[in-house]
Amino acid sequence: MLRVGYPSTLAAELFRDFPDDVELIPISDHPDHIIEIDVWIPDFFPSRASRQWPHLRGVRLVLSMIAGVEWLPALVGPEVTISNAHGAHNVPTAEWVLTAILAVLKQFPFYLEVQHAQQWKRRFEASAHYAAITGDTRPVYPPVMLEELTGKSVLLVGYGAIGKEIERMLTPFRVDLVRVARSARLEPKVHTVSELDNLLPNAEIVILILPITPQTHGLFGKRQLRLMRQGALLVNAARGPIVDTDGLVAALQDGRLRAALDVTDPEPLPPGHPLWSCPNLLLTPHIAAASPQCTPNAVRVVAEELRRYLRGEPLRNVVQPGALTALRS
Amino acid sequence: MLRVGYPSTLAAELFRDFPDDVELIPISDHPDHIIEIDVWIPDFFPSRASRQWPHLRGVRLVLSMIAGVEWLPALVGPEVTISNAHGAHNVPTAEWVLTAILAVLKQFPFYLEVQHAQQWKRRFEASAHYAAITGDTRPVYPPVMLEELTGKSVLLVGYGAIGKEIERMLTPFRVDLVRVARSARLEPKVHTVSELDNLLPNAEIVILILPITPQTHGLFGKRQLRLMRQGALLVNAARGPIVDTDGLVAALQDGRLRAALDVTDPEPLPPGHPLWSCPNLLLTPHIAAASPQCTPNAVRVVAEELRRYLRGEPLRNVVQPGALTALRS
Repeated sequence: MLRVGYPSTLAAELFRDFPDDVELIPISDHPDHIIEIDVWIPDFFPSRASRQWPHLRGVRLVLSMIAGVEWLPALVGPEVTISNAHGAHNVPTAEWVLTAILAVLKQFPFYLEVQHAQQWKRRFEASAHYAAITGDTRPVYPPVMLEELTGKSVLLVGYGAIGKEIERMLTPFRVDLVRVARSARLEPKVHTVSELDNLLPNAEIVILILPITPQTHGLFGKRQLRLMRQGALLVNAARGPIVDTDGLVAALQDGRLRAALDVTDPEPLPPGHPLWSCPNLLLTPHIAAASPQCTPNAVRVVAEELRRYLRGEPLRNVVQPGALTALRS
Repeated sequence: MLRVGYPSTLAAELFRDFPDDVELIPISDHPDHIIEIDVWIPDFFPSRASRQWPHLRGVRLVLSMIAGVEWLPALVGPEVTISNAHGAHNVPTAEWVLTAILAVLKQFPFYLEVQHAQQWKRRFEASAHYAAITGDTRPVYPPVMLEELTGKSVLLVGYGAIGKEIERMLTPFRVDLVRVARSARLEPKVHTVSELDNLLPNAEIVILILPITPQTHGLFGKRQLRLMRQGALLVNAARGPIVDTDGLVAALQDGRLRAALDVTDPEPLPPGHPLWSCPNLLLTPHIAAASPQCTPNAVRVVAEELRRYLRGEPLRNVVQPGALTALRS
């Protein structure tokens, strides 16, 4: 019988719909003995998963409950097959992107601060702020106190499952959407990353939602950041190292760009890091996907992949083929 | 030639597309003489409009640049015809509603505070907060750090131009939407206000976007607030006095409800008011519609109404018929 190890922190009831013909073995956060399993479902948090791994033996297949598994191959080695939780976290991550964009445009960081100070204070000075950050200096009355998302030009960099979900949630706002991904496509039109330099100057909002690979590491360097237009908003819901942190800090400090980040480089962001005190920055600590639906959705994706494995069908979400898939094919 | 008074704070270029056969007369914020006009476009802010009115003579028609004109009849009297800016501010107001809902569900008030404190701190305690506020005590791992809008049950109270725009923006989130308005309708199904008591217990989010009238004043009293379910989110983008402030303060202090308000009663909210220190409250100072598109859109709606008047056609956005419309009909 196939032995499947899962984090003991997960409630057993989550596995109600798991295949019957597997033995489920809870793996403690601090294992004190060697555990023989065939398939491993690692903890959500890499730090915890890394504590579990040295106690495991016999693992041929890793079924991750998260999408971003760039840290797993180094942990388990090249022989082990790895599948990720493709699609499990589309909705909360795309919702975080929408929330972050709207919160910045609606000046919520400012308004939460004045609420905290118990002041009924409209941001009349926001007109000056808006003019300075966007370069739109046309005279307005009443003063601009927040912006609209509707009609803005958006560059979506990454067009996988989460990118498509973001596009869907942007639909009612009639944005002018331009898509970029590794490979060009038609219907809908997707540009390649090589066209990025030409596309950056037009975007009022740039959304990063692509996996981190050697090709995307540092994709948004100082030059790309300089190509973005005055006051553009950079949203990173992917991985911190896709963006050059020093370049971003400089652009924020100069009042050139705005940013909303759920991920940073380094991560966690250490105390005293210059990013903490940058203006026009909204920052959350890598929490976009952590909703009540997170674990049930991840377990469902893992269960489907496991069923395919048990039936001898090709796995669907392989990110590292390993020996298992190599032998099969 | 028809004399049209407008706030001198508005840039003249906004009136490029105004009818040619009217005389545009700028009205200062502090007029020092009597001004004869036929049609008055009051300032956005009631306090400023009230300063202008005593200096005006001959006004037969008031064309407001905002939607909520409940304060205008008392200022200008019953003989004057009043049209509002129906439809001009749908988009920013609906966007504010979406932003407020998402910001609450994603715990942005908490995360902006820890960002301000320069802490990389995930809200692990949010699981307890979420369980306490929603009553959902099922065991979860990883801890719940934010909620999803997708799939929530939403009660939309008010189904005019802005209500429909909110519905449109909610579409991608597949919410379970129930509509309430003054009069019942089919296709889509709209319930009447008399059914409110039966509908309130089911809603996770209640959105108020209806005009203030003698019938809607105090519509959300202590009884209605008590009928709302544990942890429900009340969003008010309409007018403060629709909600019983004392009842809302009590429900927030008891941890029963959450709220997001752009309007309050009284308004502005005075220093030391108990609402300021309520938990689970997001508050902005009546700014939802104040975007760069606000004035151009309002002037366009006003210009269309003026054109209908000049052509002798029925006005479209009359909220007080007055002598003008009475004579016509």
